[in-house]
Amino acid sequence: MDYGIVLRVLGFLLIIEAGSMLLPLGVALYYGGPDIGAFAVAILVTAAAGIAGLRCKPTNGVVRYREAFMIVGLGWLLASGFGSLPFLLAGTLPSVADAFFETVSGFTTTGATVISNIEVQPYGILFWRSFTHWLGGMGIIVFTLAVLPALGLGSMRIFQAESPGPTPTKLVPRVDQTAKLLYGIYIALTILQMIALKITGMSWFDSITHTFATMGTGGFSTRNASVGGFGNAASEWVIAIFMFAAAVNFSLYYGLIHRKWSALFKDEEFRFYGAMVVGAALLVGISIFDSYKGQLGKVVRDAFFQVVSIVTTTGFITVDYEKWPELSKMILFFLMFVGGCAGSTGGGLKQVRILLIFKAIKRKLYKLMHPKAVIPIVLGDSPVPEETVDDVLVFTLFYLLIFAVMSMLLLTQGLDAVSSMSAVAATMGNVGPGFGLVGPTTSYADLTTLTKIMLSICMLLGRLEIFPLVALAMPNFWRKA
Amino acid sequence: MDYGIVLRVLGFLLIIEAGSMLLPLGVALYYGGPDIGAFAVAILVTAAAGIAGLRCKPTNGVVRYREAFMIVGLGWLLASGFGSLPFLLAGTLPSVADAFFETVSGFTTTGATVISNIEVQPYGILFWRSFTHWLGGMGIIVFTLAVLPALGLGSMRIFQAESPGPTPTKLVPRVDQTAKLLYGIYIALTILQMIALKITGMSWFDSITHTFATMGTGGFSTRNASVGGFGNAASEWVIAIFMFAAAVNFSLYYGLIHRKWSALFKDEEFRFYGAMVVGAALLVGISIFDSYKGQLGKVVRDAFFQVVSIVTTTGFITVDYEKWPELSKMILFFLMFVGGCAGSTGGGLKQVRILLIFKAIKRKLYKLMHPKAVIPIVLGDSPVPEETVDDVLVFTLFYLLIFAVMSMLLLTQGLDAVSSMSAVAATMGNVGPGFGLVGPTTSYADLTTLTKIMLSICMLLGRLEIFPLVALAMPNFWRKA
Repeated sequence: MDYGIVLRVLGFLLIIEAGSMLLPLGVALYYGGPDIGAFAVAILVTAAAGIAGLRCKPTNGVVRYREAFMIVGLGWLLASGFGSLPFLLAGTLPSVADAFFETVSGFTTTGATVISNIEVQPYGILFWRSFTHWLGGMGIIVFTLAVLPALGLGSMRIFQAESPGPTPTKLVPRVDQTAKLLYGIYIALTILQMIALKITGMSWFDSITHTFATMGTGGFSTRNASVGGFGNAASEWVIAIFMFAAAVNFSLYYGLIHRKWSALFKDEEFRFYGAMVVGAALLVGISIFDSYKGQLGKVVRDAFFQVVSIVTTTGFITVDYEKWPELSKMILFFLMFVGGCAGSTGGGLKQVRILLIFKAIKRKLYKLMHPKAVIPIVLGDSPVPEETVDDVLVFTLFYLLIFAVMSMLLLTQGLDAVSSMSAVAATMGNVGPGFGLVGPTTSYADLTTLTKIMLSICMLLGRLEIFPLVALAMPNFWRKA
Repeated sequence: MDYGIVLRVLGFLLIIEAGSMLLPLGVALYYGGPDIGAFAVAILVTAAAGIAGLRCKPTNGVVRYREAFMIVGLGWLLASGFGSLPFLLAGTLPSVADAFFETVSGFTTTGATVISNIEVQPYGILFWRSFTHWLGGMGIIVFTLAVLPALGLGSMRIFQAESPGPTPTKLVPRVDQTAKLLYGIYIALTILQMIALKITGMSWFDSITHTFATMGTGGFSTRNASVGGFGNAASEWVIAIFMFAAAVNFSLYYGLIHRKWSALFKDEEFRFYGAMVVGAALLVGISIFDSYKGQLGKVVRDAFFQVVSIVTTTGFITVDYEKWPELSKMILFFLMFVGGCAGSTGGGLKQVRILLIFKAIKRKLYKLMHPKAVIPIVLGDSPVPEETVDDVLVFTLFYLLIFAVMSMLLLTQGLDAVSSMSAVAATMGNVGPGFGLVGPTTSYADLTTLTKIMLSICMLLGRLEIFPLVALAMPNFWRKA
């Protein structure tokens, strides 16, 4: 293990983080808020740690397998640790566990909050909170489109029909190559949404913060009642559309740059995702229709917004869905597991994995009648390697297993079954709000410290697609090769 | 499709069923109950239908792939249909849907009941009800140890390392060959338990009926309060031990006949099953300890009985576990999915599938560090073919998918989330009682007719391990080869 290169990369990451905090510092200075000092200190501490890391000498300077896992695992932990400093120093969250939870929730683009009263917080803090979503989203896109596939992991690997296998030495150039275009798309969509929200009548501050939370499919809002707090139907539609867009595989936007709209609709995962959103919104709409007393427009808006918000794992709220009929609630609960498309900022299992599971079941049914047939699973035009299919099935079952174990662990902390299961599903899926004690009108503030730590782990497990984090916890990871 | 041979086999099945009804007729005559006529008519009708089937002429007399699927699917449906006649004719269950539900529940060894007051029913009816469990259990052992593997399906196929693949023409001889020994073991265990229960002080009638329900891992009782209604600790222990034994792979008892006790403990699935039962009982015991005010003996008995009852998918009840702490309840809920060992009368996913999922996850974690390694999954001493591993993963996810869809469908019938999810888990797993509206102190009687039909389908899907039933519903099953 080349600890030198690991520390150098982590140092570089912290320098970026310190630089990112200059923005909320600027916001704090602009509004003359009480959080100026908190950001100043946080920036100095983070930058100092970053410089210390940068000064480490690499042994041979190559990021191989183990180094990559360490960078990924420790990177998220360190970024969350230093990122929680403003919350601690500004007095927003005096508990370390709370501040860490909130920052993990931000960077993993979960959006589960432990701040009971959001509206009294200073502007700099609110800006930083939303900005962690945006930064996290940017990191995730690079992470899932370049880093994870290079490690032979992640949902994006499904699209590599030729399955070249892990090539650790190529890691850094590949990241560089893909990253630039993706950043460009991400920033373009961000600017578009900010302007669109401003046009619907939101303030620049609210437009910017909600755009950050939308593009990262995070869900932190500046209002206690989330997006519903603005009571603005046009803003809700804009946010719904951009949530939908943020959970689309970003590599599909390549095609759009070259004005190939057909590429989007030819993509099997995109069609599956679109059909699921429309189908679920329709079912929810039918289910809630009676309670809306003929307000068809509001039924459509609420059903579509809440379905998109959950399936994209954003977690914005416009209506107390806890009061909806049981069927709508269960649809939302199951959508938490599904999540967005591969290669997007959305969490969960990802649409393409669910699609492949359906295809694997279909193949098995076909094989009942044709036992000797050898049929590859095809995605788009390319056959998916059997090992990749196997990976998808194992990953999904591992995800569900961790869900079951974590749900049971939470019960030991005094939660009821609905609250614990939905809290785990909502944090592992990086959604945010769940049901019961962690429902749409409450927060994660009242849970025990141990619960918050367990849920922080769930957020990281979900976001890093489990394996990199579990690898770090395995003893033979640390053994010499 | 050779409809002639299908009808002949089904006719033969109905003749056996008519013959089986002679026993409850004898019981009704012995007690001079009001149900004598019901059984007499049911026997005549069933026998007549059976003879009509036997008179059909087979085209070429070979049971191939499609014929086997039809026999399996229609066999369970027809047996349940004719088996429900006594309930209908005796006035126990005047609704066709209710009588069908009760009989499906019996033959699939589920034990979910729609009879609100069991204790007022005539002896013949109570005997027949329990006897359907025993007959179903016998059918299942042959079905899972011989029929399903020959079709290239089922959990027992996992043990066939060489994976010979489906050999339809060999179907009948193989069934014959294995069946005899299995019947012998099944009958020997039955006689043992009857005597043991009688010794603990139960009447012969209660000993016999509860033995039928135990050996089939069914769970119908002659008391409204199930086994708890007897208030007899010794009987509870006897039933617990035989429930445990009934959910062991019956092929392991081969070894015991030749006094090779080591074969049992060398079996990986058995060790896994034993460890799970002990572990779950321990956790439940710790969880409920506080509420038992120091009655350690009762804690151990209740925890062990209820864990064994659920994991073996029997569903006997000695305590209102609905009042237990949330953790115990969730453990029981998850155990409903696990079920007994392959090749036993227990339902659910089966222990060996869960074991293989763990092994598949473990292999994936190992491969993180050794990406180029090719490691077979080993069960006992034999490598499991990759296709079988794939089958296990797909089957499990298909099972969970059907669980999710069925749970949502039940919500449309006015059930709450806990009741609907546990009703589906308890019927698909062939357990019986669930939570909420279908909890340990209630029955399935008050559900809507549509709900009962859907849950009857769940019981059959779970019992037939999904695929044979789904195959029958597929259009291309009926297409000419």
